[in-house]
Amino acid sequence: VKGVILNINPRARLVDLSHTIPPQDVQHTAWFLVGAIPPFPKTAMHLVVVDPGVGTDRPLLYVEVDGRRLVVPDNGCWTLLAQELGTPPHVTRLEESRYWCKPVSNTFHGRDILAPVMAHLSLGVSPELLGPATAKWKKLTVPSPTVDDGRVTGSILFVDHFGNLITNIRESDYETLGGELLFRIGATEVRRFVRAYAQACPGELVVLISSSGRLEIAIAQGNAASALHAEVGTKVELIRAAPS
Amino acid sequence: VKGVILNINPRARLVDLSHTIPPQDVQHTAWFLVGAIPPFPKTAMHLVVVDPGVGTDRPLLYVEVDGRRLVVPDNGCWTLLAQELGTPPHVTRLEESRYWCKPVSNTFHGRDILAPVMAHLSLGVSPELLGPATAKWKKLTVPSPTVDDGRVTGSILFVDHFGNLITNIRESDYETLGGELLFRIGATEVRRFVRAYAQACPGELVVLISSSGRLEIAIAQGNAASALHAEVGTKVELIRAAPS
Amino acid sequence: VKGVILNINPRARLVDLSHTIPPQDVQHTAWFLVGAIPPFPKTAMHLVVVDPGVGTDRPLLYVEVDGRRLVVPDNGCWTLLAQELGTPPHVTRLEESRYWCKPVSNTFHGRDILAPVMAHLSLGVSPELLGPATAKWKKLTVPSPTVDDGRVTGSILFVDHFGNLITNIRESDYETLGGELLFRIGATEVRRFVRAYAQACPGELVVLISSSGRLEIAIAQGNAASALHAEVGTKVELIRAAPS
Repeated sequence: VKGVILNINPRARLVDLSHTIPPQDVQHTAWFLVGAIPPFPKTAMHLVVVDPGVGTDRPLLYVEVDGRRLVVPDNGCWTLLAQELGTPPHVTRLEESRYWCKPVSNTFHGRDILAPVMAHLSLGVSPELLGPATAKWKKLTVPSPTVDDGRVTGSILFVDHFGNLITNIRESDYETLGGELLFRIGATEVRRFVRAYAQACPGELVVLISSSGRLEIAIAQGNAASALHAEVGTKVELIRAAPS
Repeated sequence: VKGVILNINPRARLVDLSHTIPPQDVQHTAWFLVGAIPPFPKTAMHLVVVDPGVGTDRPLLYVEVDGRRLVVPDNGCWTLLAQELGTPPHVTRLEESRYWCKPVSNTFHGRDILAPVMAHLSLGVSPELLGPATAKWKKLTVPSPTVDDGRVTGSILFVDHFGNLITNIRESDYETLGGELLFRIGATEVRRFVRAYAQACPGELVVLISSSGRLEIAIAQGNAASALHAEVGTKVELIRAAPS
Repeated sequence: VKGVILNINPRARLVDLSHTIPPQDVQHTAWFLVGAIPPFPKTAMHLVVVDPGVGTDRPLLYVEVDGRRLVVPDNGCWTLLAQELGTPPHVTRLEESRYWCKPVSNTFHGRDILAPVMAHLSLGVSPELLGPATAKWKKLTVPSPTVDDGRVTGSILFVDHFGNLITNIRESDYETLGGELLFRIGATEVRRFVRAYAQACPGELVVLISSSGRLEIAIAQGNAASALHAEVGTKVELIRAAPS
């Protein structure tokens, strides 16, 4: 991918974003982009190679949203980012093969289509030349937490590199609960809410606010995902602790 | 390595090629280079640090082949690439220690010899100054498949990051077989030939053409290497399926 | 982190130093910096994100030592490098929040404080504007080997990516022992001293001088750390072999 880009635009500056995306994990990618893309200047372009549908007729897309520019497979990986950015995206289907590397393999479109398209864009090729605009694309469904009387029910959105579990519950989702809270994941209950990892003793299971503003479950200097056998989708609950 | 290069040529632009080469695996490296180097512009230079023979009297080399420039240990890692490029290489033994970082350790010549030599080359130092030309170097033997009547026998060349098994069998090697084909690896038979990973059901074992033009065995959204206990060198067969 | 830097200084050139630091391992980081930083030109700046104390009141620091410039958490990660460089450091506490990204999270100060501070420094902001100079910081204690009559007792300082064990024993520490030497780690004795990995047979356990000038225990083409159940802090001994 890097070679293809530099071959077309030798002045391109390349920045690796992650070497730890689990293979073919579109939801992990989507959540990763939510954290990774916004700090970049809008002059950057972003390429996503996570593409379990490669070789099928799933389209490839050029996306502009809130001034951000991405080339991506149409698997929903960018839609969570777009939702966070909050402005409507402008999407182009990549159909004009004159900007691709030939022959195009059936197993590596990141190298054969996305990389050369991004390189041509970086040289000033107009997006309209890449293919037709489209209003249809795959959306990733992100479960929202439900707030009942005295209880917030959510799920794990993302497991980070350290095994920390980031939920879909935001601070605002549970602030109305008030009082002392109890966090439940499977059969495990957590009562310890901290501001930072280092406030916990090594090995202690704690709840805190992640750097993305969501509720996070972590084991200080440990791996919560493996200790709790938790994964993306695992249900979690936040409830008002019974008065003792 | 990066620090050494930038110290000699602060304007050098560095591109990481891989963080997942298995330790000391020269054959993996050789195959990796076949895919990674050709897309780069010929203005690039490439450094290989995979060097199990470091500290012995194995030479270090500067190689030019088809306009590609590499600095490498003489362990054969570049010879598969040269074979694919198809033109005769011009090889220099790195013997002129004035282009090295001193003291030279016995365990990290990538940092102490290859990195400074590449940096000096990037500043315009002529290759003849680095040492004498040589016509002797270590060649990696790459097994070729054998084609008998109704049967192609090959082996696994490479296991990629996803556990996909890339064989030494090319499309052209078996096209003459014709008819319905059966792929065999150990006691396992595969009859499902697909164009792309996503045409298989999750967990299904399939045969397809890899992005490098070789026959590849994969488990959709799984790891074929661990499921089949297969590794580099494992024998595989492609045979005409018996009429049912 | 990369996005934040490029957003403030779009002309910054970023170089990844390592993707294999074990999570929250300050001692590993400290030792890694000893090898990684000195080769760089002094025009480089270095950012350390290994920060188990994030969110507590541990300070963040800007450090200048021997012309090297680093932004780091105050966890001692840089003090081993400073000791090797051998000149007194000049240290500034990062307290001036106008150079930070807001809101500052409690779990990712590398992104919210260190990255923007480094980017502003790279644009020429004077270190005095970042906060007050300080003469207090956390120091990493690095055990020194003890040399008794006929015996050097040390410990494992660092386990590298290949599972090689680097000790705190320098060549000069045992040269006075003289004669034939025996290396002991746990119940295992090693008598084979080599100059380079490749002088050992595959699987053989050997002692050699690491690229950092310390005594190192390695298994040729194997992983000494897992084979010997050794880790940072494991005691090792070098003794005069009994005359046979």
